[in-house]
Amino acid sequence: MTKKDQPYKSALHEQDGVEPPKTLSSNSAKSIQTKRKKQPSVEELVNGIISGNITDLSRAITLVESTNTKHANKSHDIITACLPRANKSIRIGITGVPGVGKSTFIEAFGSYLTNIGKKVAVLAVDPSSTLSKGSILGDKTRMEDLVKDKNAFIRPSPSGDSLGGVARKTRETIILCEAAGFDTIIIETVGVGQSETAVHSMVDFFLLLKLAGAGDELQGIKRGIIEMADAIVINKADGDNLKAAKTAKVEFNRALHLYPEKESGWSPKVSLCSALKKEGISDVWELIQDYITTTSSNDYFEHNRNNQNKFWLLQTIEERLKSNFYKSPKIKAELDAQIQLVEAGKTTPFAAAEYLLSLS
Amino acid sequence: MTKKDQPYKSALHEQDGVEPPKTLSSNSAKSIQTKRKKQPSVEELVNGIISGNITDLSRAITLVESTNTKHANKSHDIITACLPRANKSIRIGITGVPGVGKSTFIEAFGSYLTNIGKKVAVLAVDPSSTLSKGSILGDKTRMEDLVKDKNAFIRPSPSGDSLGGVARKTRETIILCEAAGFDTIIIETVGVGQSETAVHSMVDFFLLLKLAGAGDELQGIKRGIIEMADAIVINKADGDNLKAAKTAKVEFNRALHLYPEKESGWSPKVSLCSALKKEGISDVWELIQDYITTTSSNDYFEHNRNNQNKFWLLQTIEERLKSNFYKSPKIKAELDAQIQLVEAGKTTPFAAAEYLLSLS
Repeated sequence: MTKKDQPYKSALHEQDGVEPPKTLSSNSAKSIQTKRKKQPSVEELVNGIISGNITDLSRAITLVESTNTKHANKSHDIITACLPRANKSIRIGITGVPGVGKSTFIEAFGSYLTNIGKKVAVLAVDPSSTLSKGSILGDKTRMEDLVKDKNAFIRPSPSGDSLGGVARKTRETIILCEAAGFDTIIIETVGVGQSETAVHSMVDFFLLLKLAGAGDELQGIKRGIIEMADAIVINKADGDNLKAAKTAKVEFNRALHLYPEKESGWSPKVSLCSALKKEGISDVWELIQDYITTTSSNDYFEHNRNNQNKFWLLQTIEERLKSNFYKSPKIKAELDAQIQLVEAGKTTPFAAAEYLLSLS
Repeated sequence: MTKKDQPYKSALHEQDGVEPPKTLSSNSAKSIQTKRKKQPSVEELVNGIISGNITDLSRAITLVESTNTKHANKSHDIITACLPRANKSIRIGITGVPGVGKSTFIEAFGSYLTNIGKKVAVLAVDPSSTLSKGSILGDKTRMEDLVKDKNAFIRPSPSGDSLGGVARKTRETIILCEAAGFDTIIIETVGVGQSETAVHSMVDFFLLLKLAGAGDELQGIKRGIIEMADAIVINKADGDNLKAAKTAKVEFNRALHLYPEKESGWSPKVSLCSALKKEGISDVWELIQDYITTTSSNDYFEHNRNNQNKFWLLQTIEERLKSNFYKSPKIKAELDAQIQLVEAGKTTPFAAAEYLLSLS
């Protein structure tokens, strides 16, 4: 994160309610206050975003990510103002286990896209970053070309106390990036908890990055990820690895063939690439273009986005209902005791649930 | 359903609050009342269940299935009294598309089990039965041997206004059947909505019944079902079908191999059978025995049952919270309007959710 992203952490920032020392002459104080850049208004930030100003985009994202309740209204107003200019991009989710080469792939793929005239935003959903204080994409040096590219914007994962919170911030950030003119949004995630499911629910196209191995192709990949994938891209398909990668391609194609047809009408594809050697990158983009053609002509593309919106609306409501219930002191005090009674065979799960519901 | 299952629909039943006609002499009325079998108490029903009385078991299940709130307390007391004698069975879920031969398989499998000394209860979870007024297992003539077998008990799917309701009734019925001494509980379901997931969450072992076809082995099977299966049994593996069934076995084995290891430590197996010719039935039972050995020795069996109980406890709470919220007249009035605003790009799913939550 650059200093420009942190307008509220500047040493020059004046805390509300803190009086300037009496020894400061009122004239010099006035002069300093005039020179000091004031915090941009909602309108200024929105205009900046729409004109493609990256500093303003970053500032607005910082507001979206802020846990300060004072920022919530401002961020809400910015997002609402950006909405009419959002929605006009292709959103691509990329997942894969650590070591598969996600950063190298995104670097190669993103650079390819900016070379053909695209504006690329790279975001991340990493719920573990809250605990580890680290974050995927945090180390921008792993994408040294893309980070210098004026048509690319890279933002590490927001932190949050729940996956729902992290996902919400990323979804709102997508809107801001789209309003700023980014036409290709890449969202990276690793297999932590339900993060792939969350990312799958906010993208148009879901790409699983894999390595060819010795028969353990699915090792470490959680159940269900394969089913979500619109494409499996086997990375590091170069040199001595090429033969194994080709074998893996056959196996994955066979495995995908066993799944029933997707609602999108799209048959998931398997593709080989070497992100390091920048080989097979254009194939991935062609594949995504094919996907857009297929799903635009059968209206699934729009249908899916509407469903995703509805999903997030209901999901937000239901998460809040649950969290309000389980956070209530009465429930906290009784839940474990009821679970133990169920485990000991003294009551049924249903009777225990009725009892707990009667307390709220 | 036999007449014995419907004690409350008898023409002789006296409605509360309905006075006998004055023309009836009080002596003859007394005599009729004495002869009329009174409704059994909770204690009588529980004692009957524990002694293996099928009529009492059926009566108690009817109480569990009743939507009459007067029966809820009675059913709760019966279940609680049965709990200490429950839990000592193997619960097997069986799913497969219509036409795969589920009834024929269950007939053959159930008869095999009673022949080797097991007591078998066959239940069903079919949320569609409420709409169709029909029910899988409703047509007992499809299981003519099993229905006459004194060591088998067959009960069609309860009806209900939600899958959660149907599933709850079936889970409570499992407890009653176990208390009545049934050591093998078979729960049948078809691929309707989320019914397989519900059944998977109440059984120890999940069996997917399949037919061999011409390369379209997974046609019609919902995403995720394969992942839940502990065994895939290919039925109708006889005569001209045998070759195709053997090919399908190889393909399924390959597909299953691609999935990551299950938490149970069990590798799902593929097996061939001909329910009609009663071939391969003992193999299925041996496979389930192996599963029990594996999961008992690594403690997954008990662990899974505890998790299932916890799941049903939380699930019941969360379903109720949601249903209370969405049934509220204020929310009903505003939800569609908010969804339309989201679809029109005038608000975000999150802002819409906040607004709706603020109304409750």
